Amino acid sequence: MQIHEFQEMMKRLYFERDSMRGTQSTFNWLVDEVTELGEALKGTDREATEKEFADVIAWLASLANIMGIDLEKAALNKYNNKCPKCQGAPCQCTF
Amino acid sequence: MQIHEFQEMMKRLYFERDSMRGTQSTFNWLVDEVTELGEALKGTDREATEKEFADVIAWLASLANIMGIDLEKAALNKYNNKCPKCQGAPCQCTF
Repeated sequence: MQIHEFQEMMKRLYFERDSMRGTQSTFNWLVDEVTELGEALKGTDREATEKEFADVIAWLASLANIMGIDLEKAALNKYNNKCPKCQGAPCQCTF
Repeated sequence: MQIHEFQEMMKRLYFERDSMRGTQSTFNWLVDEVTELGEALKGTDREATEKEFADVIAWLASLANIMGIDLEKAALNKYNNKCPKCQGAPCQCTF
Protein backbone atom coordinates (compact mmCIF):
# COMPACT_ATOMS: atom_id res chain seq x y z
CA MET A 1 0.00 0.00 0.00
CA GLN A 2 1.27 3.46 -0.85
CA ILE A 3 2.06 5.79 2.02
CA HIS A 4 -0.60 8.25 0.90
CA GLU A 5 -3.17 5.44 0.65
CA PHE A 6 -2.43 4.42 4.23
CA GLN A 7 -2.78 8.06 5.30
CA GLU A 8 -6.12 8.28 3.45
CA MET A 9 -7.33 5.11 5.16
CA MET A 10 -6.46 6.62 8.53
CA LYS A 11 -8.38 9.73 7.48
CA ARG A 12 -11.48 7.68 6.65
CA LEU A 13 -11.30 5.82 9.94
CA TYR A 14 -10.24 8.56 12.35
CA PHE A 15 -10.28 12.08 10.93
CA GLU A 16 -13.44 13.26 12.71
CA ARG A 17 -12.07 12.09 16.04
CA ASP A 18 -8.53 13.29 15.25
CA SER A 19 -9.64 16.78 14.27
CA MET A 20 -11.76 17.12 17.42
CA ARG A 21 -8.83 15.97 19.57
CA GLY A 22 -6.51 18.50 17.95
CA THR A 23 -2.84 18.73 17.13
CA GLN A 24 -1.23 18.76 20.59
CA SER A 25 -3.29 15.92 22.03
CA THR A 26 -2.72 13.81 18.92
CA PHE A 27 1.00 14.53 19.15
CA ASN A 28 0.88 13.41 22.80
CA TRP A 29 -0.73 10.14 21.68
CA LEU A 30 2.06 9.69 19.12
CA VAL A 31 4.64 10.17 21.89
CA ASP A 32 2.84 7.57 24.02
CA GLU A 33 2.87 5.10 21.13
CA VAL A 34 6.60 5.67 20.56
CA THR A 35 7.17 5.01 24.27
CA GLU A 36 5.19 1.76 23.99
CA LEU A 37 7.29 0.78 20.97
CA GLY A 38 10.41 1.36 23.06
CA GLU A 39 9.07 -0.94 25.77
CA ALA A 40 8.16 -3.62 23.23
CA LEU A 41 11.69 -3.47 21.76
CA LYS A 42 13.06 -4.52 25.16
CA GLY A 43 10.96 -7.69 25.17
CA THR A 44 10.74 -10.81 23.03
CA ASP A 45 7.12 -10.63 21.82
CA ARG A 46 7.58 -10.02 18.11
CA GLU A 47 3.86 -9.74 17.36
CA ALA A 48 3.48 -7.10 20.07
CA THR A 49 6.46 -5.18 18.62
CA GLU A 50 4.90 -5.28 15.14
CA LYS A 51 1.65 -3.87 16.56
CA GLU A 52 3.56 -1.02 18.18
CA PHE A 53 5.25 -0.21 14.86
CA ALA A 54 1.76 -0.17 13.33
CA ASP A 55 0.50 2.22 16.01
CA VAL A 56 3.37 4.66 15.53
CA ILE A 57 2.91 4.96 11.76
CA ALA A 58 -0.88 5.14 12.28
CA TRP A 59 -0.66 8.04 14.74
CA LEU A 60 1.95 9.76 12.59
CA ALA A 61 -0.51 9.56 9.68
CA SER A 62 -3.34 10.88 11.90
CA LEU A 63 -1.18 13.81 12.95
CA ALA A 64 -0.30 14.53 9.31
CA ASN A 65 -4.02 14.45 8.47
CA ILE A 66 -4.78 17.07 11.11
CA MET A 67 -1.97 19.25 9.74
CA GLY A 68 -3.08 18.74 6.12
CA ILE A 69 0.39 17.39 5.29
CA ASP A 70 0.94 14.65 2.71
CA LEU A 71 3.26 12.26 4.54
CA GLU A 72 4.39 10.55 1.33
CA LYS A 73 5.29 13.80 -0.41
CA ALA A 74 7.05 15.06 2.71
CA ALA A 75 9.04 11.82 3.00
CA LEU A 76 10.07 11.76 -0.67
CA ASN A 77 10.89 15.46 -0.77
CA LYS A 78 13.56 14.82 1.86
CA TYR A 79 14.53 11.18 1.18
CA ASN A 80 14.66 10.45 -2.54
CA ASN A 81 17.15 7.68 -3.19
CA LYS A 82 20.05 9.55 -1.62
CA CYS A 83 21.05 10.85 1.78
CA PRO A 84 19.78 14.44 2.11
CA LYS A 85 22.94 15.43 4.01
CA CYS A 86 25.82 13.91 2.00
CA GLN A 87 23.90 13.08 -1.20
CA GLY A 88 25.38 9.58 -0.97
CA ALA A 89 23.60 6.34 -1.86
CA PRO A 90 24.36 4.71 0.46
CA CYS A 91 24.95 7.47 2.98
CA GLN A 92 28.60 8.44 3.36
CA CYS A 93 28.17 10.96 6.17
CA THR A 94 31.20 11.03 8.44
CA PHE A 95 29.49 12.16 11.68
CA MET B 1 5.57 5.02 -3.10
CA GLN B 2 4.58 1.92 -1.19
CA ILE B 3 5.47 1.75 2.48
CA HIS B 4 7.70 -1.27 1.90
CA GLU B 5 9.47 0.50 -0.98
CA PHE B 6 10.23 3.44 1.29
CA GLN B 7 11.55 1.05 3.92
CA GLU B 8 13.72 -0.66 1.28
CA MET B 9 15.08 2.71 0.16
CA MET B 10 16.01 3.51 3.75
CA LYS B 11 17.71 0.11 3.92
CA ARG B 12 19.80 0.86 0.81
CA LEU B 13 20.80 4.26 2.16
CA TYR B 14 21.33 3.53 5.85
CA PHE B 15 21.26 -0.14 6.82
CA GLU B 16 25.00 -0.54 7.34
CA ARG B 17 25.06 2.49 9.62
CA ASP B 18 21.76 1.57 11.30
CA SER B 19 22.82 -1.97 12.08
CA MET B 20 26.14 -0.78 13.54
CA ARG B 21 24.32 1.79 15.69
CA GLY B 22 21.94 -0.85 17.02
CA THR B 23 18.34 -0.97 18.18
CA GLN B 24 18.43 1.17 21.32
CA SER B 25 20.48 4.01 19.83
CA THR B 26 18.31 4.06 16.71
CA PHE B 27 15.21 4.14 18.91
CA ASN B 28 16.75 7.09 20.79
CA TRP B 29 17.22 8.88 17.44
CA LEU B 30 13.56 8.22 16.63
CA VAL B 31 12.56 9.76 19.97
CA ASP B 32 14.71 12.82 19.20
CA GLU B 33 13.05 13.20 15.80
CA VAL B 34 9.58 12.96 17.38
CA THR B 35 10.60 15.67 19.85
CA GLU B 36 11.76 17.87 16.95
CA LEU B 37 8.43 17.27 15.21
CA GLY B 38 6.66 18.42 18.37
CA GLU B 39 8.71 21.63 18.38
CA ALA B 40 8.01 22.25 14.69
CA LEU B 41 4.27 21.81 15.29
CA LYS B 42 4.37 24.78 17.68
CA GLY B 43 5.77 27.04 14.97
CA THR B 44 4.58 28.35 11.63
CA ASP B 45 7.29 26.99 9.30
CA ARG B 46 5.34 24.48 7.23
CA GLU B 47 8.35 23.28 5.24
CA ALA B 48 10.26 22.61 8.48
CA THR B 49 7.28 20.67 9.83
CA GLU B 50 7.12 18.56 6.67
CA LYS B 51 10.82 17.75 7.02
CA GLU B 52 10.26 16.61 10.61
CA PHE B 53 7.42 14.33 9.48
CA ALA B 54 9.86 12.92 6.90
CA ASP B 55 12.50 12.32 9.56
CA VAL B 56 10.08 10.48 11.87
CA ILE B 57 8.89 8.04 9.19
CA ALA B 58 12.50 7.63 8.00
CA TRP B 59 13.81 6.70 11.45
CA LEU B 60 10.80 4.46 12.06
CA ALA B 61 11.68 2.62 8.82
CA SER B 62 15.34 2.40 9.88
CA LEU B 63 14.32 0.91 13.22
CA ALA B 64 12.05 -1.59 11.47
CA ASN B 65 14.96 -2.55 9.20
CA ILE B 66 17.18 -3.30 12.18
CA MET B 67 14.41 -5.43 13.69
CA GLY B 68 13.71 -7.22 10.38
CA ILE B 69 10.09 -6.09 10.57
CA ASP B 70 8.07 -5.23 7.46
CA LEU B 71 6.47 -1.92 8.41
CA GLU B 72 3.80 -2.16 5.70
CA LYS B 73 2.71 -5.66 6.71
CA ALA B 74 2.72 -4.67 10.38
CA ALA B 75 0.59 -1.58 9.62
CA LEU B 76 -1.93 -3.46 7.48
CA ASN B 77 -2.17 -6.40 9.85
CA LYS B 78 -3.47 -4.02 12.51
CA TYR B 79 -5.16 -1.29 10.40
CA ASN B 80 -7.02 -2.77 7.46
CA ASN B 81 -9.91 -0.50 6.53
CA LYS B 82 -11.52 -0.73 9.96
CA CYS B 83 -10.73 0.28 13.51
CA PRO B 84 -8.94 -2.65 15.20
CA LYS B 85 -10.76 -1.91 18.48
CA CYS B 86 -14.41 -1.38 17.48
CA GLN B 87 -14.24 -2.79 13.92
CA GLY B 88 -15.97 0.39 12.76
CA ALA B 89 -15.23 2.27 9.53
CA PRO B 90 -15.12 5.01 10.57
CA CYS B 91 -14.13 4.27 14.14
CA GLN B 92 -17.07 4.24 16.56
CA CYS B 93 -15.10 3.70 19.77
CA THR B 94 -16.79 5.39 22.70
CA PHE B 95 -13.71 6.05 24.86
